[in-house]
Amino acid sequence: MPFTVKALQKTGPDQPFQVATIERRDPRADDVVIDIKAAGICHSDIHTIRNEWGEAHFPLTVGHEIAGVVSAVGDSVTDWKIGDRVGVGCMVDSCGRCEQCRQGDEQNCLEGNVGTYNATDVDGSITQGGYSEKVVVNERFVCRIPDGLDFDLAAPLLCAGITTYSPLARWGAAETKDGAPKKVAVLGLGGLGHMGVQIAAAMGADVTVLSRSRKKEQLAIDLGARQMLATTEDGFYADHRGEFDLILNTISADIPVDKYLGLLKPRGVMAVVGLPPEAQSLGFGSLIGGGKVLAGSNIGGIAETQEMLDFCAEHSIAAQIETIGIDEADATYDRVVAGEVFFRAVVDTATFEDAEVA
Amino acid sequence: MPFTVKALQKTGPDQPFQVATIERRDPRADDVVIDIKAAGICHSDIHTIRNEWGEAHFPLTVGHEIAGVVSAVGDSVTDWKIGDRVGVGCMVDSCGRCEQCRQGDEQNCLEGNVGTYNATDVDGSITQGGYSEKVVVNERFVCRIPDGLDFDLAAPLLCAGITTYSPLARWGAAETKDGAPKKVAVLGLGGLGHMGVQIAAAMGADVTVLSRSRKKEQLAIDLGARQMLATTEDGFYADHRGEFDLILNTISADIPVDKYLGLLKPRGVMAVVGLPPEAQSLGFGSLIGGGKVLAGSNIGGIAETQEMLDFCAEHSIAAQIETIGIDEADATYDRVVAGEVFFRAVVDTATFEDAEVA
Repeated sequence: MPFTVKALQKTGPDQPFQVATIERRDPRADDVVIDIKAAGICHSDIHTIRNEWGEAHFPLTVGHEIAGVVSAVGDSVTDWKIGDRVGVGCMVDSCGRCEQCRQGDEQNCLEGNVGTYNATDVDGSITQGGYSEKVVVNERFVCRIPDGLDFDLAAPLLCAGITTYSPLARWGAAETKDGAPKKVAVLGLGGLGHMGVQIAAAMGADVTVLSRSRKKEQLAIDLGARQMLATTEDGFYADHRGEFDLILNTISADIPVDKYLGLLKPRGVMAVVGLPPEAQSLGFGSLIGGGKVLAGSNIGGIAETQEMLDFCAEHSIAAQIETIGIDEADATYDRVVAGEVFFRAVVDTATFEDAEVA
Repeated sequence: MPFTVKALQKTGPDQPFQVATIERRDPRADDVVIDIKAAGICHSDIHTIRNEWGEAHFPLTVGHEIAGVVSAVGDSVTDWKIGDRVGVGCMVDSCGRCEQCRQGDEQNCLEGNVGTYNATDVDGSITQGGYSEKVVVNERFVCRIPDGLDFDLAAPLLCAGITTYSPLARWGAAETKDGAPKKVAVLGLGGLGHMGVQIAAAMGADVTVLSRSRKKEQLAIDLGARQMLATTEDGFYADHRGEFDLILNTISADIPVDKYLGLLKPRGVMAVVGLPPEAQSLGFGSLIGGGKVLAGSNIGGIAETQEMLDFCAEHSIAAQIETIGIDEADATYDRVVAGEVFFRAVVDTATFEDAEVA
């Protein structure tokens, strides 16, 4: 039987959040029901529900950084049991049969993965996200949260963590060259960047943070960077030419791509996870000289997400968070957009308990 | 003692070629003297000597696709002996000590490699290229031409061959996926493209040639492609979305980068060896979705060049060439620029024998 749960919902892009009851499906044989304990607020949530990425399906509940506890499992589920501490990220289903799914790249499913919210589910319904009391998810899209990792700290890892871990792993931040750590630059020190710095440092890389100013220098160093450099300083691009093996670009604004490619060693890689709204200018000569690489990256597969959670727990890595109640969601969205949240707000879903449905 | 040889020389960007005598250095202990038999005409020669890539050093002899026979060796040379069939490509020296040189990436030498012509050599002189009777080259920059590979067919491999072989090898054109060959698209069917098609096909890839029209379809198939597709046909980019594992872009004109990236499978790679004069427009979303890669490539190292020569000999791969005498060089340059040479002109240096010095 489908059941109802409380959730934060908007009925339109300009409407405030309200507490509503939404329906969750009758768990199928391969489903897991999760009592949500914490749900991170990702900038994608805001873009989506404000219609900044196209018309969303309203009424809508967002949230794809979900941490909680298994409260029921379908008949055929063997990997999960009631009481397991688990997380769900940006996807809740995929075909499972295509080349991409078979190699663990569910995020690139050739039939399209099913997003955690605002996506058309396999039964034709629109998926509803994690600002909610419970969620029902296919067992293949559930990850285990290691003991000792709190729910509110685990939640942001399911998006911001895997988004930075995956390109750092793929492009060898953990490798050494002639016994020396790789030189990794993290461009931008926001929600993604502050995860990338911690993960790259824990992988053993020699980490530099690049930003327009050195205002956050102490923070960068506290997170594990060796240094912070300001890109606006005179001669920056010349002084640091050919210095880095890998640059992780986490910013979503225009950047001088050719200048950044100049900071790479031969065969160096610039991995981009930040999406500027406009097309960027790229001289192919910046890639050809030195055989350099510009690579995109989009979250990661489920097995890799599990690997990341285990890695973060082992190295005590987590987002810097502030926990909010459900009545603070609207104000928090405005603060996120204003750049006033350092670095992740997480909804404490215990605050649903006493909330009245609007 | 330095010695003189005949060479084709220009005294300025708008001057005709003339036969001159130029000086070659007294061979050092680690030098090899090569009697040149054939020298390919690369478009880079034309750009350089016409000052299209900046002011060249005149008087100048160009040519960096050199095939010939060893006629003398320095005292410490043990790898080469008189009579060996050898080739020289785009480089004649590098530091030999930096990280890049040590890993066989001499083209990316951190102190800068010494180009075969128009470059400042280690002794401060300006290097002079292969449209000449003889050349003196450091032993580390000499490759062996396998038996059975003619000099005029071998010469173009030293630039056009390695330029296409290196990215195809690096990005896995020879690999299979689930037992099936990789799907490789070669964009452009000119001097580089027609080498890329042959090499990719010999590596076992399923090769498609992409061009504005299908005019060269029969040629593409004769070179080893399965098919040729015209990018100007209605619906091309939609019909072939997500089809290729690897695209090798050999054209030097503007391209719709985002559309080409759309032709790649997830984690697919677009390798660029053609250098358009202007910056290109790139939406990072085209890379982020599917975790795609845009990679530059610039010739290859010496060991890889040898590997390529051996590979081409084994698979009977060569450029389609026309052989010219030294008195045809000016006219041939005009024909190359007009796109009338299919696909490589090679100077037969035997024609120096009876030529009078101007």
